[in-house]
Amino acid sequence: MIPRIDHIGIAVHSIDESSKLYEQLGLEIEEIEEVPQEGVRVALIVCGESRIELLEPTTEDSPVRKFLDRRGPGLHHLCLASDALAADDRRLRENGYQLLREKPTRGAGGCWVQFVHPKSTGGVLLELSQPAGEEPAE
Amino acid sequence: MIPRIDHIGIAVHSIDESSKLYEQLGLEIEEIEEVPQEGVRVALIVCGESRIELLEPTTEDSPVRKFLDRRGPGLHHLCLASDALAADDRRLRENGYQLLREKPTRGAGGCWVQFVHPKSTGGVLLELSQPAGEEPAE
Repeated sequence: MIPRIDHIGIAVHSIDESSKLYEQLGLEIEEIEEVPQEGVRVALIVCGESRIELLEPTTEDSPVRKFLDRRGPGLHHLCLASDALAADDRRLRENGYQLLREKPTRGAGGCWVQFVHPKSTGGVLLELSQPAGEEPAE
Repeated sequence: MIPRIDHIGIAVHSIDESSKLYEQLGLEIEEIEEVPQEGVRVALIVCGESRIELLEPTTEDSPVRKFLDRRGPGLHHLCLASDALAADDRRLRENGYQLLREKPTRGAGGCWVQFVHPKSTGGVLLELSQPAGEEPAE
């Protein structure tokens, strides 16, 4: 089950520049996280039960750099919270959806994550995320 | 102030096709709304305190049709709930952000809405929405 939108990821050239808009609206960056394995810095902006994540590339071969080169800055991916990620993973796989990884892996903050390829979602890079601490439930 | 993500809008060729993914995850279409003035049918999928909105064009000159032709299906816009839309509108305008309408207007369900042009947000079509019933607060 999907209790909420976990976050919306936005590809930006510069966190410093792009965060100004959200600050004008009274939202604040809670934390900036470096994710070297993805070649990205991530600014976390809490918004109700969800987050807005600004993704700034830090390397030339970063997937976010490639996205910026191809499509320009803007909405990058949608992440839904899952409370049964292993079961969601299996059900999507059985129904022909193309998952990016063989099984859920550990993501930022220790949570479990899986991705559904935009080719099988109608153009949306969809992330599913289950909080750290629990094994992905069947 | 922005208490939550109101919804994320996704441009789709077909609500029937695209809704299957969300149904696989246990999410359901609560309502399908026709918005003839925007040339669009909108499927509302409740997700926690937010919604996922699938936008299917109904006319050839629909902005969503043009988006699909130009960029293909996928994430279309981000809507943040505002509890003081007139004040947010004025502050953004004063700080050089390009708003699409002269002032907030009535949108679907009677709520007040305003849009910030992607050129001034770093590529994100940003909607701000305040619930029906209240005049946009200063």
